[in-house]
Amino acid sequence: MLFVIVSLLACTSKQQTTHTPQKEVIITGLNNPWSIAFINENEALITEKDSNLLYVNLETKEKTVVQNFPTDLVDSIRVKDFRDNSGMFEVVLHPLFSENNLVYISYVAENNQGLTTTKVIRAKLIENKLTAVVDILVAKPFSEDLFHYGGGMCFGKDGKLYITIGERLYNEKDEPAIPIAQDLADRRGKIYRFNDDGSTPTDNPNFDGSAIDGLYAIGIRAAQGITCHPIAGDIWFSEHGSRQGDELNILKPGANYGWPIKTTGQYRHLAYQPPAMETTEFAPPTHAWLQTVAPTGLCFYTGDDFPAWKGNLMVAGLSRGSLWRMTIKENEVVSAEELFMNDRVRLRKVAQSPAGRLYVLTDENDGKLVQIVNK
Amino acid sequence: MLFVIVSLLACTSKQQTTHTPQKEVIITGLNNPWSIAFINENEALITEKDSNLLYVNLETKEKTVVQNFPTDLVDSIRVKDFRDNSGMFEVVLHPLFSENNLVYISYVAENNQGLTTTKVIRAKLIENKLTAVVDILVAKPFSEDLFHYGGGMCFGKDGKLYITIGERLYNEKDEPAIPIAQDLADRRGKIYRFNDDGSTPTDNPNFDGSAIDGLYAIGIRAAQGITCHPIAGDIWFSEHGSRQGDELNILKPGANYGWPIKTTGQYRHLAYQPPAMETTEFAPPTHAWLQTVAPTGLCFYTGDDFPAWKGNLMVAGLSRGSLWRMTIKENEVVSAEELFMNDRVRLRKVAQSPAGRLYVLTDENDGKLVQIVNK
Repeated sequence: MLFVIVSLLACTSKQQTTHTPQKEVIITGLNNPWSIAFINENEALITEKDSNLLYVNLETKEKTVVQNFPTDLVDSIRVKDFRDNSGMFEVVLHPLFSENNLVYISYVAENNQGLTTTKVIRAKLIENKLTAVVDILVAKPFSEDLFHYGGGMCFGKDGKLYITIGERLYNEKDEPAIPIAQDLADRRGKIYRFNDDGSTPTDNPNFDGSAIDGLYAIGIRAAQGITCHPIAGDIWFSEHGSRQGDELNILKPGANYGWPIKTTGQYRHLAYQPPAMETTEFAPPTHAWLQTVAPTGLCFYTGDDFPAWKGNLMVAGLSRGSLWRMTIKENEVVSAEELFMNDRVRLRKVAQSPAGRLYVLTDENDGKLVQIVNK
Repeated sequence: MLFVIVSLLACTSKQQTTHTPQKEVIITGLNNPWSIAFINENEALITEKDSNLLYVNLETKEKTVVQNFPTDLVDSIRVKDFRDNSGMFEVVLHPLFSENNLVYISYVAENNQGLTTTKVIRAKLIENKLTAVVDILVAKPFSEDLFHYGGGMCFGKDGKLYITIGERLYNEKDEPAIPIAQDLADRRGKIYRFNDDGSTPTDNPNFDGSAIDGLYAIGIRAAQGITCHPIAGDIWFSEHGSRQGDELNILKPGANYGWPIKTTGQYRHLAYQPPAMETTEFAPPTHAWLQTVAPTGLCFYTGDDFPAWKGNLMVAGLSRGSLWRMTIKENEVVSAEELFMNDRVRLRKVAQSPAGRLYVLTDENDGKLVQIVNK
């Protein structure tokens, strides 16, 4: 008897059942959903990468296709390459949406030569129809490449619209002499900051006077997710590496994030020799994963369901279906937790409702809006 | 003004400062400490890999060398190979230590030909001297190899002593025709289960009648950490992979963990062809990391300092200095958090005091006992 007592002492028995995050499916039948914008706690807009912009009611489960989407939209269904990244991407509401009904949508637009690029539009959403559509950004040139369109968007606390645009190449062997992401005359491979009407803020950084409208940072390979820190206002974005090298970065005005000169991963084309840029200062990543995650839509968590997670950065990953929770302290990643390792599904987005509920969108043909609940 | 309010709504501002784990150095000046065994809340035995068995008082910081350690101990200081793994490893107390003063220590013993192997002894600790030393296990054969001695030990809830022994090779090109870890006539690359006096329990598995004393499981490459689940009583052990393939496993009687036939990593010698063993059933790992962790000493957490961590498995890693927290549900790893990513140091052990305080040992020349506190 004494033996048993001492034995238990060695690894005390105060264990109790702790609450763990659980998935609760809210909406099914979404065609590879990419983004969600909450109008209120029960109503949202959801983009389907390969189909439609939807109005969704989380309570009634009603889905309505928003009409009058621009006809230059193309998606990955038109081609056979499994890596084709074309389609509809982010939807965000204007901070004053309840007054002005303005929405911003990024998507792949095709020109009359069948070439594509990323486009961002602003429109008024009136009775589930888009009206008064204006272009905010057309990431020229149009090209044949099918990859890394970017398309992430968020509003900062400064009321400005931030947009990620990828460089569109799959393999760096196809880089021109001046790599796309380093070329100030090319709108791809950059991050932008616009006023809500698409004009360039007067306090945007100056890239030697030669920069294009809205340019804010360069050296981007394949960034999708972008979000603002709710207190500090810092803008964080995720970026896909080539072979590994998936990163989190904090956006700095005028920064050069290094692609393809500097990367934490390996080149797909191992023999690739980038041009020498010895005098250029490259912004290091805030975090680089040692495994492939394919990080996409991200958000800071400020809800009440998981008190221990307050202030954490949640990151959705496509690769192996990861949901990551990062604890941040003074803009450093202090810890990183991979969640739902026993229930993996590709995730495109993690987002928070106005009241602080946490949701993810699964990247599936029969995609789902899933709430993360504490049970 | 309304603009600001709505903007904040989008990423609500209920954030509060959450408590995060902090390191508090308790003891310094430990020479690559490997293991700690708590006598009570303030007194412990600590093994130094390359030096001594120490009695340590956590309150007064007093350190006393325990005398009369067997003279066949050798450590890595004698050789120049940086990968030399020789030295003193685990120390555990008998579950009835307060009555019988028995301790168990694993270390590298050298024979008179200068060859080495892992040895486990039992001794009485009287006035900081080892007396009545008996051999529990000598993992013959002695050999020239310097690596993967294993040496992890724990008592199960069944009162039995479990021991991990590595297969000693660095590179699988040096495997004999019957690989070491698969050879029942070789004591290396195995896991053992003994009665507290070193005899073999009558309910140990039967390996075709040919098995050696204490044999419990086979197919082990380089396992160090081993611990018992405080409620279920399952025995969990960590294992170093070759190129990646670091694993967590649950110990099953008679199981074959597959090395070098089956592994989640890559062989160091990529051309290595293991013998075919098509009809053999290999136990899959419970968890395999996608990055190199070099997991070592581990324990289940049952303390009160971090209520959300109750029941979690804590794992120390040598590579890049990781402390991992794994949430386990029905013997599956549900989530994994890497802690202290902004303050990395090689860790050899994570252990819990009798009252549930959490400690780590740093693998440094000036090694430290560090408490993980909630501040």
